[in-house]
Amino acid sequence: MNKISGIAASAGIAIARAFILEHPDYSVQKKQVNDTQAELDKLDDALQQSSVELEAIKERTLQELGEKKAEIFESHLLILNDPEFIDPVKSLITTESINASYALNEIANQFIGMFENMKSAYLQERAADMRDVSKRILKHLLGISQVSPAEIAEETIVIAEDLTPSDTAQLNRRYVKGFTTNIGGRTSHSAIMARSLEIPAVVGTQNVLAQVTSGDLVIVDGLAGEVFINPSEEIVAEYRIKQQAYDLQIAEWKKLRDLPTLTEDNVQVELAANIGTPADVEGVLENGGEAVGLYRTEFLYMGRDKLPSENVQYNAYKTVLEKMSGKPVVVRTLDIGGDKELPYLEMPKEMNPFLGFRAIRLCLDRQDIFRVQLRALLRASVYGNLRIMFPMIATLGEFRAAKAVLLEEKEKLTSEGIAVSENIQLGIMVEIPSTAVLADQFAKEVDFFSIGTNDLIQYTMAADRMNERVSYLYQPYNPSILRLIDMVIKAAHKQGKWVGMCGEMAGDETAIPLLIGLGLDEFSMSASSILPARSLISKLSTSDMKQLAEKALEQATAEEVVELVKATVSK
Amino acid sequence: MNKISGIAASAGIAIARAFILEHPDYSVQKKQVNDTQAELDKLDDALQQSSVELEAIKERTLQELGEKKAEIFESHLLILNDPEFIDPVKSLITTESINASYALNEIANQFIGMFENMKSAYLQERAADMRDVSKRILKHLLGISQVSPAEIAEETIVIAEDLTPSDTAQLNRRYVKGFTTNIGGRTSHSAIMARSLEIPAVVGTQNVLAQVTSGDLVIVDGLAGEVFINPSEEIVAEYRIKQQAYDLQIAEWKKLRDLPTLTEDNVQVELAANIGTPADVEGVLENGGEAVGLYRTEFLYMGRDKLPSENVQYNAYKTVLEKMSGKPVVVRTLDIGGDKELPYLEMPKEMNPFLGFRAIRLCLDRQDIFRVQLRALLRASVYGNLRIMFPMIATLGEFRAAKAVLLEEKEKLTSEGIAVSENIQLGIMVEIPSTAVLADQFAKEVDFFSIGTNDLIQYTMAADRMNERVSYLYQPYNPSILRLIDMVIKAAHKQGKWVGMCGEMAGDETAIPLLIGLGLDEFSMSASSILPARSLISKLSTSDMKQLAEKALEQATAEEVVELVKATVSK
Repeated sequence: MNKISGIAASAGIAIARAFILEHPDYSVQKKQVNDTQAELDKLDDALQQSSVELEAIKERTLQELGEKKAEIFESHLLILNDPEFIDPVKSLITTESINASYALNEIANQFIGMFENMKSAYLQERAADMRDVSKRILKHLLGISQVSPAEIAEETIVIAEDLTPSDTAQLNRRYVKGFTTNIGGRTSHSAIMARSLEIPAVVGTQNVLAQVTSGDLVIVDGLAGEVFINPSEEIVAEYRIKQQAYDLQIAEWKKLRDLPTLTEDNVQVELAANIGTPADVEGVLENGGEAVGLYRTEFLYMGRDKLPSENVQYNAYKTVLEKMSGKPVVVRTLDIGGDKELPYLEMPKEMNPFLGFRAIRLCLDRQDIFRVQLRALLRASVYGNLRIMFPMIATLGEFRAAKAVLLEEKEKLTSEGIAVSENIQLGIMVEIPSTAVLADQFAKEVDFFSIGTNDLIQYTMAADRMNERVSYLYQPYNPSILRLIDMVIKAAHKQGKWVGMCGEMAGDETAIPLLIGLGLDEFSMSASSILPARSLISKLSTSDMKQLAEKALEQATAEEVVELVKATVSK
Repeated sequence: MNKISGIAASAGIAIARAFILEHPDYSVQKKQVNDTQAELDKLDDALQQSSVELEAIKERTLQELGEKKAEIFESHLLILNDPEFIDPVKSLITTESINASYALNEIANQFIGMFENMKSAYLQERAADMRDVSKRILKHLLGISQVSPAEIAEETIVIAEDLTPSDTAQLNRRYVKGFTTNIGGRTSHSAIMARSLEIPAVVGTQNVLAQVTSGDLVIVDGLAGEVFINPSEEIVAEYRIKQQAYDLQIAEWKKLRDLPTLTEDNVQVELAANIGTPADVEGVLENGGEAVGLYRTEFLYMGRDKLPSENVQYNAYKTVLEKMSGKPVVVRTLDIGGDKELPYLEMPKEMNPFLGFRAIRLCLDRQDIFRVQLRALLRASVYGNLRIMFPMIATLGEFRAAKAVLLEEKEKLTSEGIAVSENIQLGIMVEIPSTAVLADQFAKEVDFFSIGTNDLIQYTMAADRMNERVSYLYQPYNPSILRLIDMVIKAAHKQGKWVGMCGEMAGDETAIPLLIGLGLDEFSMSASSILPARSLISKLSTSDMKQLAEKALEQATAEEVVELVKATVSK
C-alpha cells in the first residue's frame, strides 16, 4: 500500500479503480509506403472502429442526456461516412504512396480550413466537428488506446498530471467517483470544478501519476487530502465506514435544502452558488442555493475556435435565468487574461499576467467583444432576475466607462423595439485593494459589491496564489484582509447597498463566523458547500459573531485570528 | 528634422552627437581553414589592437579614477600577454586547421571553467577577467566595431533599445550628456539611474533607435520628454536658451544646498536620497541630501559571477556610512527576484515574478545569503548612523523572523568581540497593501516605515508598472493610495515612530504638497530632485496642505485629486 498526501480540494470519499488520463501525442509524419493497399485497409479499420465507438456514445448520450445532446454524435457519424471527405483521403494514399494517417490529416485540415473561412456560422461550427472526427479516426490509426474523459463508462478515479477545463467539463459524474492530480491548489480550476461537480478530489500531490497503474484500487479522501493506492482490506473497510458517515452527514444537510438561511438569533443571509455553465444550475437547486452569486461566463468563450455569437450567449443566459425562476442571478462579464487565455484572441505574452491586461481592462479596450456580451445579457434580462457585475474594477473611471457602454447598448436595444428589464442591478467585483479602500466612493454609484477574495488576497499580500513558493502568504484570515472586507461592508451599508462574497472564503467554515460578524449579506460558494454553510450559520449568533469580528480586526496575525475563531466557535 | 516623443525620465536638456549603443552578436562558428597562417595573423592583429585599447583605457582610468581602479586593466594586459593563454590558441589553430575566433573561444572557456572551479576566491575572480579579455580579443577578430559604454570619450547622446544596469553603471557622466531609449518607463531601471547620475533622459520612445544614425545631432529634452534628430539651427538655438534657463534654475536651487528643509510656516522635514552604490554619495552631498533614505544593495550582487563576500559588502557599507559622516543611512536588505534576477542564483522562472519569491521572502529562505549581508551591515554600523530596512514585508510574522535572524547575528558578533552599534534603527518598507492596512500593528514593533510607492501602487491597483497596456492604472494620486499613505503615517505617529517615502512619488511636485499635508517625515528621492523639492516645500504652509490632503482623501478619482492640487498650490 502507498499513501500520498495532497491538497483536499473537494470533500467526500471515493473508492474505485484508477483511470490514468494522459494527453497522447497526435502528431503525424509523412511516410512513403510500398504497400498502399495495407494503408487503405488500416483506414477502413479505423473508420469502422470509430463508427462503432460513435454509435455507442450516441446511444449512451441519448439515454442519459436526451436527444438534443445526442445529435452532435449523429452529425459526427455523417461526416465519418461522407464520401466527399473519405474518398480524397483514399486517393491521396494511392496517388502519392503515403501513409494513411498523414493523408487523413492533410485532407481533414483542408476541410477545416475551408469551413473556418466560411461566412456561415453553421459551417464554421462544422470545422470543430471535423476536428473531432478526424482526431477520433487518427486515434485508431495511430493505435492510441486512450479514451476521452467523456467516454469513461465504469466507476473510476481519474489520475492525471492536471485536468484542463475541457477535461473537467467532460467528466461524467456518474462514473468518475473522484480524481487526484499532481499539480494544482485549492483555488485552481480543477479544484473549483470538482467542488461544483461534487466529486471528491485531492490535488497537488506532486507525484501520484508516477505511483499509480491503471486498474489499481485507489481511495481518494477529499476531506483529509489523502490518497491510498492499493490499500489493505482493513483500510478499505475503514474508509467505507468514513464514506457512509460522510453520506449520512450529507443526508442530514439535505434536510436544510428548502429552509431559509437563518442565524441562531434569526438574522437572515443569502446563500448563493458559483456556476460556470447552465448545466450547473441543477446542482445549485439540489443544494438549496437561493441565488447564483457568480456566473463565470468565461466557459462560454473557452474550448472553441472563435468568440461565441450573441445568440449563443443569449441562450445560455436565458437558460440560467429561467431555471433559477426569479431567484437572483449575478452574471460576471468576461474575465479573461491572467491565467485564462483564449487562443483565438492572440493576446501578447505578459511578464506578470495577474497584474496585466485582463477582464474589464480588456473589455473596455475590445468593446467589440464587450458589447456583444452586454447585448446578450440585456436581451436575456426579461427572463429572470438578472444582476450584472464587472470584474477587476480598479478605479471609478473604469466603472463609469463600463456602465456607459451598458447604457448605450440598452438604449440601442430599446430603440430596436427589443424588451429589456428595467430592474437590472449593476455591481462590481471588489478584488483589487484600491477598490476596497475606496469602497465608500464606489458605494454611491453601484448597486452592490461582490468581494472576490481569491484575487483580493493575492493582490493585498502581493503573492501569486498559484506559486507554491509564496503560498504561505495566501492568508484569508490575515487581519488586513478582514479589515478590507469590513471597510467594504460598512461603506455599502451606509449607502443602503448589499455586499456579497464570491471567493473561496465565502464557503470556508473558519471564515463564515467572521463574515457573519462583519455583516456580509450574501455568501456565494460551490453548490456543495451551501448546505454545510447553512447548518453552520444556524448555530451562530450575530451578536457573538460581531464581538468576534471586532476582536479579529485588532489582531496582528492570521494565526491569532484562527485561534480566536476556534476558541469562540467551539464554545 | 525629426521629433520623437517619449517619457521624460530625467530632467535637463542635452545637445550632442548620437552614439548608438548596440549589443552585437559574439557567437562563433567552427570553420575549417586552409590558410592557418592567415588565422594566426588575424589573432596577432586582434591581440595588438586589444593591447592598444587596454593601454588607453588604463591611462584614462588612472587619471580620472585613480590607481586602484586602473589596476584591473593592468591585470587584463597581463592576461593578454600571457603565453600560457595565447600559445594554446595558436597551436589549436595550426593543429586542427580551424579559425582563430573559434580557437580563442575554446581555450578561453577552458581557462574560465578551470578558474571557476578553484577554491581560491582570487582565482575565481580571474574567471571574470579572462571573460572580459577574451571578449575584447573576439571583438577585434569578429570585426565588431562597438565600443563599450565605458570607453565613450567624447560628448555624446547614447541611443539604445534599452540600457542594462551594467550599461548605465559604465556610463561616464563627463562624456555621456544624455540618453534616449526605445523602451522603459519613469520607474524603469535606466530612468532611475539617469536621475541618480543627473543625465537628461527620454525613455520609452518606441522607435528612436531606428531613426537615428551614429553622428546625428540630437537634442534630448528630459523636461518635456522629447527628442529632436538633426534639428534646424533655430531649434538648436532655442534649446541652448532653454538649457541655460534650466542651468540657471539649477544654480538657484544650489543655493539651498546647506539649508534645512522648512515649510513656509517653519515645519522641518528631511530630504534624503536614494542611492545604488557608494559612488552615488557624492551626488547626495552635492545636492544637499540630509540622509540616505534608501541604499539599494542589489547592485553589490549584480554584474558578478557569485555572491559578494562579507568583506566586499562591509567595505561598501562602511564607505557610505563614513562619507555621510553621521547623517542617517537607511540600508535596504537584498531585494532580488521580480524584475531583478541574479544569474548565479538560478532562480526558477515564475509566472508572475512581481507576485513571487523575492526580497525578504527569498532572504528568509536563503538565510545563508541573508546572514552574510546582516553581518556586514552590523560590522559597518560603528562607522555612522545605520538604519536597516527589510523589503517586501507582508506579515508581522516575516518581520519578526527577519528581526530574529538579525539579533542572532548581532549576538554572534558581540560574542566574537566585534563592535556593533547599539543605536541601529530597524524598519520596513511599506510596499504591500496588507502592511499598509495593518500599519498600526506593525508600528508597535518597528522603529520606522519607509513607503515604497512604486510597488505599493502596482499592487494596490493590481497593475504591472512595466506593462504599457495597463499603465493608465499606475496612479500615484488615486485617493486609495493617499488613504493607505494616510493610514501608515497616522499609525506610526501614534506610536511615536517616523515615516519616510522612498518611491518615485516622494520627489514628485504634485505629490509633495499632499505628502506635507499628510505629515510625511522624510522624503527620499533621486539626488537631483532634492533641491527642487526643498525650494517647493519652502513655499508650502503645513496648515493649508493639511486641508488640501483632507479634501484629497475624500475625492473619488486621481484626476480630481490632481485638479485639487493644481487649484490649491498655484494660488
